[in-house]
Amino acid sequence: MSIIVLGTVALDTVKTPFGKRELMLGGSAVHFSMSARLFTKVSLVAVVGKDFPQKHIKFLKEKSIDVSSVVCEDGPCFKWEGEYVGDLNSANTLHTELGVLAAFRPKLTLEQKKIKYVFLANLDPEIQMHVLENMGKPSLVGLDSMNFWIHHKRAELISLLKYVDIYVANDQEARSLSQETHLIKAAKALHAMGPKMILIKKGEHGVLFYSDKFILSLPAYPTEKVIDPTGAGDTFAGGFMGYLAKAKKIDQLSLKRALAYGTVAASFNVEGFGVEKTSKLNFKDLEGRLGQFKECFHF
Amino acid sequence: MSIIVLGTVALDTVKTPFGKRELMLGGSAVHFSMSARLFTKVSLVAVVGKDFPQKHIKFLKEKSIDVSSVVCEDGPCFKWEGEYVGDLNSANTLHTELGVLAAFRPKLTLEQKKIKYVFLANLDPEIQMHVLENMGKPSLVGLDSMNFWIHHKRAELISLLKYVDIYVANDQEARSLSQETHLIKAAKALHAMGPKMILIKKGEHGVLFYSDKFILSLPAYPTEKVIDPTGAGDTFAGGFMGYLAKAKKIDQLSLKRALAYGTVAASFNVEGFGVEKTSKLNFKDLEGRLGQFKECFHF
Repeated sequence: MSIIVLGTVALDTVKTPFGKRELMLGGSAVHFSMSARLFTKVSLVAVVGKDFPQKHIKFLKEKSIDVSSVVCEDGPCFKWEGEYVGDLNSANTLHTELGVLAAFRPKLTLEQKKIKYVFLANLDPEIQMHVLENMGKPSLVGLDSMNFWIHHKRAELISLLKYVDIYVANDQEARSLSQETHLIKAAKALHAMGPKMILIKKGEHGVLFYSDKFILSLPAYPTEKVIDPTGAGDTFAGGFMGYLAKAKKIDQLSLKRALAYGTVAASFNVEGFGVEKTSKLNFKDLEGRLGQFKECFHF
Repeated sequence: MSIIVLGTVALDTVKTPFGKRELMLGGSAVHFSMSARLFTKVSLVAVVGKDFPQKHIKFLKEKSIDVSSVVCEDGPCFKWEGEYVGDLNSANTLHTELGVLAAFRPKLTLEQKKIKYVFLANLDPEIQMHVLENMGKPSLVGLDSMNFWIHHKRAELISLLKYVDIYVANDQEARSLSQETHLIKAAKALHAMGPKMILIKKGEHGVLFYSDKFILSLPAYPTEKVIDPTGAGDTFAGGFMGYLAKAKKIDQLSLKRALAYGTVAASFNVEGFGVEKTSKLNFKDLEGRLGQFKECFHF
């Protein structure tokens, strides 16, 4: 099964204790695609500006990403600049330039509207809703958001949650939207807003999955080499959703496997700047690390 | 195999959003014993004051804890008063009264000196060293400490680490003693100080185990019912060390099982005030929850 992802394609400037990269390819939809592509065909829906280097489009095509709905508009690309210090668990945003993102109205091809697996990565909830309304009958809809929208478009985000199967949030976002501090309680409150499944990403502490049938918890893959965590959550979501699209079923076992693949994919992401590591990944690398990860739990 | 634990026996006053308990039985050695007793015979080495209720001694005996080296000295009991707010991840200490702990010099019986499994729970590193010097030839020595000693008796603690097999610390303590922010790097630095194995407790985020042979990571058991986390780390250590004492071997499989038992034991601890839940636990309860926990990882 194919998957369609709506999100940002960005030019990221990132500084960590391990170096700095300027205007590298980034954005939620790009990071998502880098892991989802290992499982299934990925269609990317996004906007870029006139200053977006053509080599990045070529690169995405080489990775078998369908870029037919990546539109180029007049104006500058969406740009994010951030810095990580200390334990690299959270970024300090130094600068954000919305550019062409501000007026983005995605258009899908007829083929894309038929895709059954949908991921609405972080973007204005109104744009996310617009895309969702244009889809046929999706089998599974995942949604990510961020604090900016939780604070500025809370009502729109909450309306959107009613049409979503899986809400993916980091721990801060889950607490902020649910107004609960304990994560399982937060998940329960978010679940009551509509999504059947809640997936809370805790960075270096792994993930918590909540549904009314079961709760699952997985640690992060223990990697020492944390170079740049930007996009780890989206890479996780790409592995998670990608696996489910490939498995074509949503049961406890497939969800557990999806969580494990997402975890392992995210561990590669943090080991390099931007998509340096994930763009070179193949399915065998993923399987290899999954095997090592599983070893933790054979007891 | 028996296990001997040196640590505190305290009267704890704890306030959480779920209520308050005054002067209840607590302390590192007590919480450790509550889970270790499910695996093996536990000898407790500690001091109490004249105001220590005799019913607690009776209670410990009923739990098959050897209290022959729990001495009663002139003066008040060690008392701790703390409050948890928000996500209950860290306590605000409101009051500490050292009492008889200040002049404690433990004395072991001849039988106790022969015990092969030793746990030095949080206490002055000089007292921990004193006990260790009095032991015969232990097979396995575990050590816990806390920020107070890391700051005030750093040199003594670092000397002691050379004689320890497993150093157990929470994430803050591990970072503070190693002066590394990334936890795997912190574990590596602590390992270089002597202990073959480093166990970092991350509260609701589970544990990280480090040795030069392998790194393991486990999430906490996902429980919604967090009433009072006081003693969760010691309960974890008791389950972990208790299992190893029972298994009588230290290999990858037994370490993974020990981590899992510790995790599950700790999850019961947080579900009640003090030892309310862990004192009523039996091995079957532990096994039952371990089975549920394992389910997370069958993928």
